[in-house]
Amino acid sequence: MKLSTLKEGGRDGTLIVVDKQLEKAVRVPEIARTFQQALDNWQDTGGKLQEIYTALNNDPGLPGSFPLDENLLAAPLPRAFQWVDGSAYVNHVELVRKARGATMPENFWTDPLMYQGGSDSFLGPRDDILTQSTEWGIDFESEVSVITDDVPMGISPRGAAKHIKLFMLVNDVSLRNLIPAELGKGFGFFQGKPATAFSPVAVTPDELGDAWKNETVHLPLITHLNGELFGKPDAGVDMTFNFSKLISHAAKTRFLGAGTIIGSGTISNLDRSQGSSCLAEKRMLEILAHGKPKTPFMQFGDRVHIEMLDNEGKSIFGRIEQEVKQYHAPEE
Amino acid sequence: MKLSTLKEGGRDGTLIVVDKQLEKAVRVPEIARTFQQALDNWQDTGGKLQEIYTALNNDPGLPGSFPLDENLLAAPLPRAFQWVDGSAYVNHVELVRKARGATMPENFWTDPLMYQGGSDSFLGPRDDILTQSTEWGIDFESEVSVITDDVPMGISPRGAAKHIKLFMLVNDVSLRNLIPAELGKGFGFFQGKPATAFSPVAVTPDELGDAWKNETVHLPLITHLNGELFGKPDAGVDMTFNFSKLISHAAKTRFLGAGTIIGSGTISNLDRSQGSSCLAEKRMLEILAHGKPKTPFMQFGDRVHIEMLDNEGKSIFGRIEQEVKQYHAPEE
Repeated sequence: MKLSTLKEGGRDGTLIVVDKQLEKAVRVPEIARTFQQALDNWQDTGGKLQEIYTALNNDPGLPGSFPLDENLLAAPLPRAFQWVDGSAYVNHVELVRKARGATMPENFWTDPLMYQGGSDSFLGPRDDILTQSTEWGIDFESEVSVITDDVPMGISPRGAAKHIKLFMLVNDVSLRNLIPAELGKGFGFFQGKPATAFSPVAVTPDELGDAWKNETVHLPLITHLNGELFGKPDAGVDMTFNFSKLISHAAKTRFLGAGTIIGSGTISNLDRSQGSSCLAEKRMLEILAHGKPKTPFMQFGDRVHIEMLDNEGKSIFGRIEQEVKQYHAPEE
Repeated sequence: MKLSTLKEGGRDGTLIVVDKQLEKAVRVPEIARTFQQALDNWQDTGGKLQEIYTALNNDPGLPGSFPLDENLLAAPLPRAFQWVDGSAYVNHVELVRKARGATMPENFWTDPLMYQGGSDSFLGPRDDILTQSTEWGIDFESEVSVITDDVPMGISPRGAAKHIKLFMLVNDVSLRNLIPAELGKGFGFFQGKPATAFSPVAVTPDELGDAWKNETVHLPLITHLNGELFGKPDAGVDMTFNFSKLISHAAKTRFLGAGTIIGSGTISNLDRSQGSSCLAEKRMLEILAHGKPKTPFMQFGDRVHIEMLDNEGKSIFGRIEQEVKQYHAPEE
């Protein structure tokens, strides 16, 4: 099943069911007005939404259906009660540290890195990345994320798997030049992580077919920068902590409410031939190879596209397509 | 005006207007079903809620009103789209560092510390603090917080002041023994910050009267531990960054959605005679005085009360009253 949200009807938008081909959609106010409402009552709504999805796929003229325009979509959850992002591709973390001459603590291979992200206003898949200054080092991070239902505190990784309900792609926009000073203060990311963007649709695990195994998505995540292929590392390779382990880590000392989004962190393969999922990694590889980076961070007008294709070459989530634009702060 | 939320009617509860004396309340479904709905449309709902508040205060028999029972309340926002916590009483930060023999970077006096907190499931004012183990070092942190409306990205401190709509007290529950290793990993707090609790009611700035000036609350915040006074430092003293500065810091690189909660951090006065707002600070003072702490962290059965009184000795926000209880994780 594929679900998304139209930018209409208020801050949380309007939930729609989207067909498998991403060609048409239908509103479902009789089941849930918003995506969060559907998640709040997933045991009741999940099956009903699935029925609409099946009907939409089978009947080209389903009453109320209309052509899907990805430009009219918000993030599937335009705002959420929780967004946490892991850094599950530990080889990426090790690389970043290596480039600055630091070793990585051994427990990074066993104890997940995770940060609490801002979830009050996400970017839709076609929304501009608004930033005041390119001096801040604007970067994308292509990731996969899951949406959970209610997760009990203290859940084991084994118990966590069944709480994974949906998937989205993520552009975890980062301001690289703000991050070192911010992390140096010890309280983690804040200004270095502006609004995060999500793919046009969220999909249930069955949409991934055989690619979903061991709580890992075994498909390349494809990033283009200004129309050129930037990277297509496989999200199923070198994921040190699968989604079950990330959920268990997040729930160690608290309950996770329905609609919690948990990200994988930047997809990164030890085999660097497939490219990267963020500029920072490419720059680190350049530093290691040539002593200094040559790829700049994003400039105003730069465009990033993020997409995942199934084994037949069809887009699963639709495409994140964003452009960096300058933002001017209010006078007062 | 005083607003709160009953634990009835779903995950977001039911918004109520509470009278000034905290004695009675009334549901307001014709204005907004939930607190978040009211905040989403504050320009429209704020005035209407104020009218109900005035009527409730003036008419002992207002139709639909009922006696307020603080035990039936959720957090005013049972879940929120954003909860960020500053550490605005910098003398506290300096003390904590001093106790472990570290100096504090000079820029901590000019650049606020702030972390992104989990906001998907808050604790109500009488909810138990559920924790698996006392080995984790259970602590309270008594704080003041503000709720904002929509805040533009890049707002100045001067421009931020008008976005402060309401106040709440906070118990920013912390697991002290998990924090050093977590902060050492560099991504900030996560497991060290379990669910946060809020006061029975949220109040508008006019309820603070003269105590609200320079975007600082000039009243003692009173904490009792197991029935004994633990501290009553003045929230208006030694607040290095006022709420306008905290909001401006939070909004530097992103918009803040309506209903964003921003906390002050543990209230702490350089004059230690008024006591502390968390066990960690008391333990640090013991370390500096005697070489080691003698006050233990919270044990199962321990109770913490947090309250703020006006100049006539009346409770402004109602009282946070919580007990620490053991939680048992699910088998699987």
